[in-house]
Amino acid sequence: MSELPDCLYCRKDQRLHDLMLEIAPLGASMLYLFKEQSHRGRCVVAYRGHVNELFELADPELTAFMRDVARAAQAIKAAFKPNKINYGAYSDKLPHLHMHLVPKYEGGVNWGAPFEMMPANRKLPNEAECTALIAAIRAKL
Amino acid sequence: MSELPDCLYCRKDQRLHDLMLEIAPLGASMLYLFKEQSHRGRCVVAYRGHVNELFELADPELTAFMRDVARAAQAIKAAFKPNKINYGAYSDKLPHLHMHLVPKYEGGVNWGAPFEMMPANRKLPNEAECTALIAAIRAKL
Repeated sequence: MSELPDCLYCRKDQRLHDLMLEIAPLGASMLYLFKEQSHRGRCVVAYRGHVNELFELADPELTAFMRDVARAAQAIKAAFKPNKINYGAYSDKLPHLHMHLVPKYEGGVNWGAPFEMMPANRKLPNEAECTALIAAIRAKL
Repeated sequence: MSELPDCLYCRKDQRLHDLMLEIAPLGASMLYLFKEQSHRGRCVVAYRGHVNELFELADPELTAFMRDVARAAQAIKAAFKPNKINYGAYSDKLPHLHMHLVPKYEGGVNWGAPFEMMPANRKLPNEAECTALIAAIRAKL
């Protein structure tokens, strides 16, 4: 039996559920809705394997992952019409490749600056609102 | 005659030179050293064309661009041995695809948090120091 690393993306445990909700599996990753929605439509694309850096991926995997990122970004754009999508992969302390996709709106939160990882005034939609956000993104994938 | 957009990455004018120095052309982009070096080895990979979002690229261009990003990140890792590379593409107000590659060091600036775009205490190496940084990265490309 293989033992999964102690990693929220591998174990999909409560640590993950506290932060995000599944939207859909993509070619090489899982697409999640980030529960903190100061940036309406914010998502995470998590690679299916436990790798840390982009350069650990061979070309086909890198292409597959980035195609997922681009596909998810396009769906967010189509669903919510942000002015720009921001892309961020940090993972200093969580060594599992994932990309934050953060829609930015002109005049809105963090416009013109890097997005905050967790804005002080958290915006946490209720379950029905999350379901609607997820449905809106799924419809555009 | 084609007129270039009023974009620092297209025109490569003083606005660009104020922020970064050329390291090397890559397959689909130009690799720059970011002059502000609070994160030792920080670079920018700028796509060769004036597109805004990752999803505007067809698959071969997306692959070529991300291969450049991965190659540059690997070179930074080999040259300076950071604990992690951060990747960020924002461009809310500068619609030309570019990715910030920001080496993070355990216990160092912004460790465990998204990197600051422009830290308050700017660290600006002199010309000789920049030349040495560029040479160190080129040697690992």
